[in-house]
Amino acid sequence: MSFPESSSRPYEECGVFGVWGVPNAAALTALGLHALQHRGQEAAGIVSFDGEAFYQHKALGLVGDVFGNQDVIAGLPGEAAIGHNRYGTTGGTHVRNVQPIYADYAFGGLAVAHNGNLTNAATLRQALVKRGCIFHSTMDTEVIVHLIAISLYDTVIERLMDAAKKIKGAYSLITLTPDNGLLGMRDPLGVRPLVLGRMPGYEDKQGGWVLASETCALDIIGADYVRDLEPGEIVVINAEGVKSLWPFGDVGRRFCIFEYIYFARPDSILEGQSVYEVRTRIGGELARESGVEADVVVPVPDSGVPSAIGYAHESGLPYEMGIVRNHYVGRTFIQPTDQVRNLGVKMKHSANKAVLEGRRVILVDDSIVRGTTSRKIVDMVRAAGAKEVHMRITSPPTKHPCFYGIDTPSEKHLLAARHSLEEMRKAINADSLAFISFDGLYRALGHQGRPAENHTNCDACFSGDYPITLVDKDGKLIQQ
Amino acid sequence: MSFPESSSRPYEECGVFGVWGVPNAAALTALGLHALQHRGQEAAGIVSFDGEAFYQHKALGLVGDVFGNQDVIAGLPGEAAIGHNRYGTTGGTHVRNVQPIYADYAFGGLAVAHNGNLTNAATLRQALVKRGCIFHSTMDTEVIVHLIAISLYDTVIERLMDAAKKIKGAYSLITLTPDNGLLGMRDPLGVRPLVLGRMPGYEDKQGGWVLASETCALDIIGADYVRDLEPGEIVVINAEGVKSLWPFGDVGRRFCIFEYIYFARPDSILEGQSVYEVRTRIGGELARESGVEADVVVPVPDSGVPSAIGYAHESGLPYEMGIVRNHYVGRTFIQPTDQVRNLGVKMKHSANKAVLEGRRVILVDDSIVRGTTSRKIVDMVRAAGAKEVHMRITSPPTKHPCFYGIDTPSEKHLLAARHSLEEMRKAINADSLAFISFDGLYRALGHQGRPAENHTNCDACFSGDYPITLVDKDGKLIQQ
Amino acid sequence: MSFPESSSRPYEECGVFGVWGVPNAAALTALGLHALQHRGQEAAGIVSFDGEAFYQHKALGLVGDVFGNQDVIAGLPGEAAIGHNRYGTTGGTHVRNVQPIYADYAFGGLAVAHNGNLTNAATLRQALVKRGCIFHSTMDTEVIVHLIAISLYDTVIERLMDAAKKIKGAYSLITLTPDNGLLGMRDPLGVRPLVLGRMPGYEDKQGGWVLASETCALDIIGADYVRDLEPGEIVVINAEGVKSLWPFGDVGRRFCIFEYIYFARPDSILEGQSVYEVRTRIGGELARESGVEADVVVPVPDSGVPSAIGYAHESGLPYEMGIVRNHYVGRTFIQPTDQVRNLGVKMKHSANKAVLEGRRVILVDDSIVRGTTSRKIVDMVRAAGAKEVHMRITSPPTKHPCFYGIDTPSEKHLLAARHSLEEMRKAINADSLAFISFDGLYRALGHQGRPAENHTNCDACFSGDYPITLVDKDGKLIQQ
Amino acid sequence: MSFPESSSRPYEECGVFGVWGVPNAAALTALGLHALQHRGQEAAGIVSFDGEAFYQHKALGLVGDVFGNQDVIAGLPGEAAIGHNRYGTTGGTHVRNVQPIYADYAFGGLAVAHNGNLTNAATLRQALVKRGCIFHSTMDTEVIVHLIAISLYDTVIERLMDAAKKIKGAYSLITLTPDNGLLGMRDPLGVRPLVLGRMPGYEDKQGGWVLASETCALDIIGADYVRDLEPGEIVVINAEGVKSLWPFGDVGRRFCIFEYIYFARPDSILEGQSVYEVRTRIGGELARESGVEADVVVPVPDSGVPSAIGYAHESGLPYEMGIVRNHYVGRTFIQPTDQVRNLGVKMKHSANKAVLEGRRVILVDDSIVRGTTSRKIVDMVRAAGAKEVHMRITSPPTKHPCFYGIDTPSEKHLLAARHSLEEMRKAINADSLAFISFDGLYRALGHQGRPAENHTNCDACFSGDYPITLVDKDGKLIQQ
Repeated sequence: MSFPESSSRPYEECGVFGVWGVPNAAALTALGLHALQHRGQEAAGIVSFDGEAFYQHKALGLVGDVFGNQDVIAGLPGEAAIGHNRYGTTGGTHVRNVQPIYADYAFGGLAVAHNGNLTNAATLRQALVKRGCIFHSTMDTEVIVHLIAISLYDTVIERLMDAAKKIKGAYSLITLTPDNGLLGMRDPLGVRPLVLGRMPGYEDKQGGWVLASETCALDIIGADYVRDLEPGEIVVINAEGVKSLWPFGDVGRRFCIFEYIYFARPDSILEGQSVYEVRTRIGGELARESGVEADVVVPVPDSGVPSAIGYAHESGLPYEMGIVRNHYVGRTFIQPTDQVRNLGVKMKHSANKAVLEGRRVILVDDSIVRGTTSRKIVDMVRAAGAKEVHMRITSPPTKHPCFYGIDTPSEKHLLAARHSLEEMRKAINADSLAFISFDGLYRALGHQGRPAENHTNCDACFSGDYPITLVDKDGKLIQQ
Repeated sequence: MSFPESSSRPYEECGVFGVWGVPNAAALTALGLHALQHRGQEAAGIVSFDGEAFYQHKALGLVGDVFGNQDVIAGLPGEAAIGHNRYGTTGGTHVRNVQPIYADYAFGGLAVAHNGNLTNAATLRQALVKRGCIFHSTMDTEVIVHLIAISLYDTVIERLMDAAKKIKGAYSLITLTPDNGLLGMRDPLGVRPLVLGRMPGYEDKQGGWVLASETCALDIIGADYVRDLEPGEIVVINAEGVKSLWPFGDVGRRFCIFEYIYFARPDSILEGQSVYEVRTRIGGELARESGVEADVVVPVPDSGVPSAIGYAHESGLPYEMGIVRNHYVGRTFIQPTDQVRNLGVKMKHSANKAVLEGRRVILVDDSIVRGTTSRKIVDMVRAAGAKEVHMRITSPPTKHPCFYGIDTPSEKHLLAARHSLEEMRKAINADSLAFISFDGLYRALGHQGRPAENHTNCDACFSGDYPITLVDKDGKLIQQ
Repeated sequence: MSFPESSSRPYEECGVFGVWGVPNAAALTALGLHALQHRGQEAAGIVSFDGEAFYQHKALGLVGDVFGNQDVIAGLPGEAAIGHNRYGTTGGTHVRNVQPIYADYAFGGLAVAHNGNLTNAATLRQALVKRGCIFHSTMDTEVIVHLIAISLYDTVIERLMDAAKKIKGAYSLITLTPDNGLLGMRDPLGVRPLVLGRMPGYEDKQGGWVLASETCALDIIGADYVRDLEPGEIVVINAEGVKSLWPFGDVGRRFCIFEYIYFARPDSILEGQSVYEVRTRIGGELARESGVEADVVVPVPDSGVPSAIGYAHESGLPYEMGIVRNHYVGRTFIQPTDQVRNLGVKMKHSANKAVLEGRRVILVDDSIVRGTTSRKIVDMVRAAGAKEVHMRITSPPTKHPCFYGIDTPSEKHLLAARHSLEEMRKAINADSLAFISFDGLYRALGHQGRPAENHTNCDACFSGDYPITLVDKDGKLIQQ
Repeated sequence: MSFPESSSRPYEECGVFGVWGVPNAAALTALGLHALQHRGQEAAGIVSFDGEAFYQHKALGLVGDVFGNQDVIAGLPGEAAIGHNRYGTTGGTHVRNVQPIYADYAFGGLAVAHNGNLTNAATLRQALVKRGCIFHSTMDTEVIVHLIAISLYDTVIERLMDAAKKIKGAYSLITLTPDNGLLGMRDPLGVRPLVLGRMPGYEDKQGGWVLASETCALDIIGADYVRDLEPGEIVVINAEGVKSLWPFGDVGRRFCIFEYIYFARPDSILEGQSVYEVRTRIGGELARESGVEADVVVPVPDSGVPSAIGYAHESGLPYEMGIVRNHYVGRTFIQPTDQVRNLGVKMKHSANKAVLEGRRVILVDDSIVRGTTSRKIVDMVRAAGAKEVHMRITSPPTKHPCFYGIDTPSEKHLLAARHSLEEMRKAINADSLAFISFDGLYRALGHQGRPAENHTNCDACFSGDYPITLVDKDGKLIQQ
């Protein structure tokens, strides 16, 4: 067991990566997954293809642990590979739920890695099972694989497009096939990210192509960023280059706004915007919207850092490292006895008294979920001697769960879903509390404010405006 | 094998912790070691005593891995315990070299944890071996244990004082005994740190005492900081309270200045000074001493962060996170094939193009050792589009190895030992390079400059002024 | 890597076990699998059902290693469970090929454990894949699961019967279902074994039913042997008792004769015959058929022991332990350097000189496969001083591979397939060599000799008379 | 936790092995330890010396597990090595108690492996500790190492002789030194075994020398048996050949008689007698002394096998495998719930009904310790249908604990220490019970009977006649 706050991140997603046409594709994939480690720390997997056969390795653990052994990489030959980082779900984690999924089917072999969530997975699964399909995992990905397998079309690509029309949801998909190469696909509204990169050749080695959840995974292997896939786009990557297919037509664009706020790495560029710059601009907006007299601006590390820099710059207040993060928190730690629990031990954060003592402190954090972590941090900052604690949040209140691939608590556990701002302030024991406004958030993204129509982003977790139908919303039919 | 830069830290030391008179002492010790994890990531050990018997558990790995299992903690009963974090040496690491050392001897049992280095260990060891002593490890600590065991004095405390007079070096020592309680000791010049804390009682639980390398280990368990041990002080902690002994008399004070620059955690307070504040002041001094026209101040994370904040504040330039650190680097990672090596992959750092592109960048780092890491970072920043790169170092040039407990390369591997400033600048490919001056460094510590005499700190790695005789300097006689 | 002779057994099969209606069904299953460990040492798995949900644990290793941890058993609640021991295949062993297979399908859940081989698996698999089925493993069992899933019948039992009519092969099958209880099935000719047992109630605990590959697995848990399943019989075990179904009609009976010779444990009773007694009678027949003047009868342990006892008794020669077996051979051992290889090291057997020196020795072994092991043993016995070595084999010459579930080398590796008796004698360096005759073998089973028609057993590996069509004989279509 | 009967052996000892002057000495040592695995299954260790440095590897586990990895063997270079198998003690087993012990001392390095027990270890340890010696383990071996280290003599050999005069006990010792080569030593009365072998050269490889607990360890590597070391002999093996030293003079000869009865492997030759032949002769004596009308002779495997063969031969009754042993019992197994416990599960033995049903059975076993195992076996044989069960034991009643290196229960746990023959018979539920007589036992060894004086063997566990003073008998002073 672990301390509540020792789970590395309050929200969880996944990372996907694929490479085509480059020697040692699996080694590059391991590096790419390492750069995407923040998107999922529980498990990692790679499937490679060497022109003859598929090879796979999947295990629970960090990328460096799962693929750190050279023998493992040597066992994944070929110039094409796809990989996946899985986030940590509570409870029954099994290797059978680790991606990529590999399956033998009519076309000889198919590997699929998937980030996101289908909103009609349970419904589809029920229908598939009635038809005689067998499920080995509880993953949405397996639904997609079955849809491809039972499609009546002749080619994998047509089958993928056929399957794509049946599924609803927010997802990025990377597929490796023996004959058609590497396929990438983004959901019709482009809620989840997927970028295309070009691996330059070097010496006598050929270049090739890369797909990744974020650009930071291109940077680590020296690949050049080409572009984001468009919403609803399928790319087919093989010896003939990159070909685009459009199974859906143009149905809009609703990129997940929370990727900017929290999920993506600050050095990534998503949909043409630097994540770091968006965050610093949010900090600036926040300072303008809800400035308060104070002595120091302190980020809750790590996600609050750029916003706190932006806040400090806009407000003219000094930016200081008032909270230190311990990066050595392992996956497990001492099970808290009552004694230890009473000590209120913080495994991950500690207060820097030199910065906080006697000061009026502005804390900048990305969001408030249950409020328990925020309360602990405020209490810790007060215990270190802060005179006042003003909490500034770089997102609007999180009032609704995400059904599009980010693992959030259900509504009843979301503090903002049931409490007024003042109640929340009291709950976290802050002297003041402010969230960024919707308009401020969209201004930080370069808009005039939140568009009344033609929304450019999905902000359902704040607004409840779900752009994709929630077919299975009333509870998944089949659960592990 | 691991990438050169993936070893978590360029310098290495150890961390020690002890607690007396508190239920579940081992659980608290594990927490304290977790807070001291930055001082040593290779191995961890705890010895506890329950009034009847000693219990021990030692293993390679992070504290959370070694002590994360509740059964392990349950197997370490008692209200007294000591623990140790070991740094990662290259090559032959063995469990037999993990501390604390436990030995049965004439007084029934003795556990010792030790941070630092004896400068006459090899000489003493040779003499002890001639006398018939047997060594099971290659650790200096074992020399101390033998000296205690063969002492002709009657009590453990007298024997510890007897041993203390024979050893030379820089060390902090924590010893657990059946009859005399917990003993702490700092070397005569106080080169290595050791602080005393008070564990408050709660509910019906008694309070007790804590010893730790840094105050951050007191904070995590809610212990109050009492004071640093004085140079040369022995404290005896037991049911009668805390008693001080002074085996050496006053021979000066030379606390390791590099603890402030690099080693200690920023939220620690050492010898009355906040490590964080010293670092920000060094950044300010550096800005005054070697300011340069530029667009942005960027820290090399994590140790450069406070100094970069101080530099930015003093210079009026914006502070930005131009380099992102990946905290998921495991102990091992993919063995670089030539291909991967050619990619110049950075496992630990990545450049944030949004901040760096087209900018004149001031990089703030703590030191230059071999120069290879600095060169890689400068190249990475340039590759991200920086127009100019100005390196500012928060220590004077590292020209001499440390013989006092910090694992540094030998002189021939130190870039500064053999090259002029201009040669160094070229070697790291920077547009300009500046180190803090000795006077600037001491000003940051609150002095007028570096004292001509009565030095307050050990700065031998910069100055070559070694305050403790190097008896074994010409090479240890007995090596593993 | 391991020494050639250190692989625990030259032939390999599997073991299956199931229990219904007894508390702690998984614990009993682990014990049953332990008693069946000789049938497969590579991996073990259990799926349990507690009336609500299925639980599974599968891993590589011996039963005691995989299920020795109480937490593992505690995680497998319920009064129904099935288990499987998997034999060690060379090369690509993966957890994904460990049984039982569990799948979600139209009836909510299905677990299948299977011993044997389908002779039309590849053909069926090809057809299923064309239909859109996805395969996650390379196991025949998965074919059966798919056939059940796509069957158009309404109930699981009808679907199992439907599937049974499509598959050809030699197999014993145990299936666990949520609504229909525990199902057991033997192939139409009863080639592979499966016995039914009754678990008596005790104290206030109810009794229940057990299915197992051999009776020794009933003995270990105190279950009473009821009867062998009949060839082609399906038993449905649930709260209403045991019901039999006969999907095939009577097509004959061809129980695998090699189970008596080698595979089964000597304390098992199969098809009404004690394995031990059959073996001792074979030894007696062998003595009558091919007696030779000698001083001592020595078994090649362990399978040769009962036959050697029978041979000694019939011949009047003394039975002696001239070869000692080392039972501690682990799964891996020192990779033989040339030096070690030259020593001709025997990891598993050693010669007992006191018995062998100066003697004319009759060695009794179960079979000759490649001849290499026999040669090593004869050489070892000679090196220990034997004057003459007469090899007596308790089976007819192994000339044909088994396609019915026993992992034998292909024909080109079988010494007897290509060599005369005299050539074989020379190859193994024996003074004389004799195999049991077909008639002698059948006499030991209680017949007058080998029946000209109406064979009662499958002896295809000796006779080439394959009673089940080899649909896929020309090579499996789909391989891992 | 494990089932009571799953611990592999009721008595426990250790095995030692050493090789000098042969390439890949560590590989040969691993093979030798494998052949000696029956003497200790808990842990194994090897120390090698390559002319420059010592190398060691020690771990809990079977030899094949600890040394099966080629990298481990490659890390133990040199042409000299010693090794040790440790038996399984209950409770606190630690790596620190695994042998060989390696220590740096005045002569640069010393490795010691030791089988047996010192009867004045606690007394010596107390004195050494008073002198200032530190103990890291609880092993007797460490006492010997300290005595060598503090000896005032100049050479290692003189120091070993000096130490030898101070210790009392039954032991075989192998020591590896940098300058004096390989030393072997047997205790003054030769209670524990140690044999000398000659490793023939081959191709261009030199030959060398081997020391081992039993000859079976010579056989596995193809070494020729030269002779047993004499009681009290020290052999010094180096480039000059083998030299003998006699520190004690002739004080008699008392080789452990229980090595013949139970401990040694049947293919070993100890003190010129084949263990197998001694056992069969004991079986013959037993048949003559206490024959009984019966149908079948059944050994309790494995140690009862040769004696049962001898008994059957002498009595003319058929020898049959009425009890089958499961050799796959791992070190841990399912923790018995009450349910499982009530089933009386036998993990290691199972009854072969075909042999036992309706028969009058003579069981042959090596000894009765607590009586619980014997009772379980008799009950199991009865449950399998035996009409009568007559237990015949190949040793006299075990009435006294061994203080000479075999781990036996204390007197109060020995059934024979407190009960009459008839009480014992009832306790184990047998129809008759007989032990071999002292005279019969000695006749099997080639004597006329048990010598009234000049005993040739130690039989203290049966007779209470302890030939070596029990200095620490009243309880060890220092315990773990």
